[in-house]
Amino acid sequence: MKIVIIGAVAAGTSAAAKARRNNEDAQIKIYEMDSDISYSACGLPYFVGGKIETLEELVPRNPAFFKSKYNVDILTSHQVLNINSNDKKIEVKNLLTSEVFTDSYDKLIISTGAKPITPQIQGIDKKNVFMLRNVRSADLIKTYINKQNPQKAIVIGSGFIGLELVENLKALGIEVAVVEMEDHLMRPLDCDVSMYLKDILLKNGVEVYLNEMVTELAGDEYTNKAVLKSGAVLDTDMVVVAAGVGPNVELAKKAGIEIGTTGAIKVNNRMETNIKDIYACGDCAESFSIVTGKPCYRPLGSTANKTGRIAGDQATGENLEFRGILGTSIFKIFDYTVAQAGLSEREAVNEGYGISVCHNIKPDKPEYFHGEEMLIKAVADKDSGKLLGVQIIGKSGVDKRVDVFATAITFGAKVQDLFHLDLAYAPPFSTTKDPVMYTGMILTNDLERGRKLITSDELDYRIENNESITIIDARAAKQYEQSHVEGAVNLPHEILRENTDSIDKDNMIVTYCNKGVTGNAAQNILINKGFNKVYNLSGGHKNYFKTKDI
Amino acid sequence: MKIVIIGAVAAGTSAAAKARRNNEDAQIKIYEMDSDISYSACGLPYFVGGKIETLEELVPRNPAFFKSKYNVDILTSHQVLNINSNDKKIEVKNLLTSEVFTDSYDKLIISTGAKPITPQIQGIDKKNVFMLRNVRSADLIKTYINKQNPQKAIVIGSGFIGLELVENLKALGIEVAVVEMEDHLMRPLDCDVSMYLKDILLKNGVEVYLNEMVTELAGDEYTNKAVLKSGAVLDTDMVVVAAGVGPNVELAKKAGIEIGTTGAIKVNNRMETNIKDIYACGDCAESFSIVTGKPCYRPLGSTANKTGRIAGDQATGENLEFRGILGTSIFKIFDYTVAQAGLSEREAVNEGYGISVCHNIKPDKPEYFHGEEMLIKAVADKDSGKLLGVQIIGKSGVDKRVDVFATAITFGAKVQDLFHLDLAYAPPFSTTKDPVMYTGMILTNDLERGRKLITSDELDYRIENNESITIIDARAAKQYEQSHVEGAVNLPHEILRENTDSIDKDNMIVTYCNKGVTGNAAQNILINKGFNKVYNLSGGHKNYFKTKDI
Repeated sequence: MKIVIIGAVAAGTSAAAKARRNNEDAQIKIYEMDSDISYSACGLPYFVGGKIETLEELVPRNPAFFKSKYNVDILTSHQVLNINSNDKKIEVKNLLTSEVFTDSYDKLIISTGAKPITPQIQGIDKKNVFMLRNVRSADLIKTYINKQNPQKAIVIGSGFIGLELVENLKALGIEVAVVEMEDHLMRPLDCDVSMYLKDILLKNGVEVYLNEMVTELAGDEYTNKAVLKSGAVLDTDMVVVAAGVGPNVELAKKAGIEIGTTGAIKVNNRMETNIKDIYACGDCAESFSIVTGKPCYRPLGSTANKTGRIAGDQATGENLEFRGILGTSIFKIFDYTVAQAGLSEREAVNEGYGISVCHNIKPDKPEYFHGEEMLIKAVADKDSGKLLGVQIIGKSGVDKRVDVFATAITFGAKVQDLFHLDLAYAPPFSTTKDPVMYTGMILTNDLERGRKLITSDELDYRIENNESITIIDARAAKQYEQSHVEGAVNLPHEILRENTDSIDKDNMIVTYCNKGVTGNAAQNILINKGFNKVYNLSGGHKNYFKTKDI
Repeated sequence: MKIVIIGAVAAGTSAAAKARRNNEDAQIKIYEMDSDISYSACGLPYFVGGKIETLEELVPRNPAFFKSKYNVDILTSHQVLNINSNDKKIEVKNLLTSEVFTDSYDKLIISTGAKPITPQIQGIDKKNVFMLRNVRSADLIKTYINKQNPQKAIVIGSGFIGLELVENLKALGIEVAVVEMEDHLMRPLDCDVSMYLKDILLKNGVEVYLNEMVTELAGDEYTNKAVLKSGAVLDTDMVVVAAGVGPNVELAKKAGIEIGTTGAIKVNNRMETNIKDIYACGDCAESFSIVTGKPCYRPLGSTANKTGRIAGDQATGENLEFRGILGTSIFKIFDYTVAQAGLSEREAVNEGYGISVCHNIKPDKPEYFHGEEMLIKAVADKDSGKLLGVQIIGKSGVDKRVDVFATAITFGAKVQDLFHLDLAYAPPFSTTKDPVMYTGMILTNDLERGRKLITSDELDYRIENNESITIIDARAAKQYEQSHVEGAVNLPHEILRENTDSIDKDNMIVTYCNKGVTGNAAQNILINKGFNKVYNLSGGHKNYFKTKDI
């Protein structure tokens, strides 16, 4: 029994380790093009920023480790050129000697990973234009920074790597501009959540260019000016291209392996491709959504480890099966954390769900324990009550909430279930009712209790269409005077009970406060007094004005 | 419609607020014996320690707030003396004027809370012996400390309040001794987990007395010596009794309301007592376990808020129902966090489950991001594979993991499900495979894959019974030389593959390493080579020696 694995980063080494744990006798061999193996690609931005001091910390394991620990042979600087699935043979090139030879396999696992997307930019080949794709490229960037002491940098793209680089370059005292072709940062986020992210970048002195592209990187050997689509010109001392990644499937394609609709290698739940005894896993393989059941491509280290382990288990005759993903992801940006799991509002609408949406702004801990506010945008299916997805931004405790939501969604949780969770409460860790529970309560009130929510976008849309709406600002007069939604009347919660006579009972009413709680209280009073069409503005004044362009 | 509520701390005020949200017309009135309402009892230890500076931070709401915000009347310093459920009347005493009067109700909600258990100790009434039960008593303790500058304190009991006080008194520079009558700290924990807690206290300079009781507090007006059951005498400048709490049910009992097996008021899922139109909620009411379905009593702020809200909803004709608890709890102790959800090993055994137990020691983040180790002890049902409970101790990220486990257990998760969770990974927040997932993998390997675990307790028991066991220390020779399990032979993982001939194939074999991973690797090699009775020591050398008395 001979298992050959192509690629020795996250998925490939996971597959090898699992295969060995299951089977002591199999011969297990990995071919890796790169000189490094099993490194933490997710740690690379932090090496650039100096938070991680040496590359050794990111590459704790070498082929000798795998040999002694797992009896696995890893050949680095070896490129697999061709797969001949009829003969179960592969053609391999030693990149150091250029020697080409043939090897055979009983089971073949393809874990060729992802490759960065290279945008068409004139001058992209200049010496101070980088991509962060592996250990070597991180070292190049770090060396350039150390030697050339750049003052200004441009990051092209605002995915995880791009934004983590922004933070890490800023940490080195470099002025940073982000150029993003979409209309909002971090594409998987909804626009209204992404506005919070933009605000964070701006407040940390980062320049943000949306709906923009770099068309030319001017200069001689080194670029010193970036020309944008709009005609704007940015001075710069270095550029990092982080325009996303795509699955590395050339080798698989050549071998006749089926590619899925997402462009990644199509696999079943056993990580099998369409060709017998050939598996694919990690960033080159297609995944599927736990929520929709449909194929998706979200290349993440967590999924690569998981699918690698499954491929290794299956290749040794065992039965572990892949159950899909929520695309759960998280990143740190300055003193904030941004996380997501499941469907965004945009995705849910595109999938045809009738949805309920809430923007829940709550502290992660009591005020007296210096709780920090977080925004939880949650999307639920109106028909089933099932939670479809969440997006969270805050300074503290975001990672906990997204993992609780991800777990709940995986088990098919309805919004009604969240209030009932018995989550751990003590003042240093949470509020008595956790923000997760409040999210469920707000959505349940919308779905079952006639306490309808309206999003900022929908309110604006209705205002623009000249619908007749009574907008009630339930905050204190002072707050109202400082700023309020256009056309709103001020009826503070405390006096609302006694002052409902003047309000037209048949008109659509929208209540709001700072963040939503008192808006809901005002809504309750009106509904209990017989008003019929009362909506509470989701996320209140705070969220409404955050989602205006800043 | 008139709703009367007895008690205005967590449950009572939650009930009132929810009732008002549902119903604008009902008259809602709360009688409260104390002078303070709606305070955070869980924050009181931190007021003592100075982390919370003013009592106002803990008591953010007063009756005027409830009047203006919810149109709820709260009468403080009013004790309800009797309930006459036939006439739907109550007898109330104004504690300030001693006036006694009668009031009526349509719906009555009892939220009389818990009361501290007072141990029989000679001298317990001395002036420097305190209980921490409410805002006033916290103030008394704080004032005493400020004025008398005590150097030494004794805390009797090691529940949440007791241990949080230990930390907070130490923070003030006071030497602290804990006296606990049980054989381990924090009764709900298993002994082997509680040993980690004891270690934390000792390392922070706290004296710990187990299996001990204070029999006498000697001195004149003030005690200066505590005499223990063993005869030991401890000098002290103050004593705080934190010997646990029991449900405050005298009033309910007198009214003929049924008390459950736990001693708390028996309620159904609608928080109804056996008497029509009388509800109970919060720390005076019985709860039930989500895992076993059986009644339990775990007075916690999170549950009080939840059951209060449900009572308020039901009293206004709505349909929210209680779904039980996992007894999820958490506390901070020095730089550690200790948390628990579901059944302990002891509880699971008492309930008659055949169980699988693992001690999973893992960092919460990658090493290069300064990950801190945590211990996760998890208990699963052998028959169904369902996770029954977890206990976690660590410096960072414990609150996240316990909430994920609590959510998973609530949805009936099997240990096999945990690996498949799509949890949020990025280096500042987690490892690629989260400790939660590893816990599932370890237990699945035990339950399904023939990779049996053995606990330290069971190994010791078998050694004591002179069973023939080959114990293999798979660590490096240097580590073995420093310390090893008695009778173990050293066969480092790296050379084990080539050195299995000398091992008796029919003997029981126990492998171990530092924490379990390499022990499992050694186990895999032996099993794959045809050895039959191979066990991996749960939690390895580290856990084995932690559970020895320290």
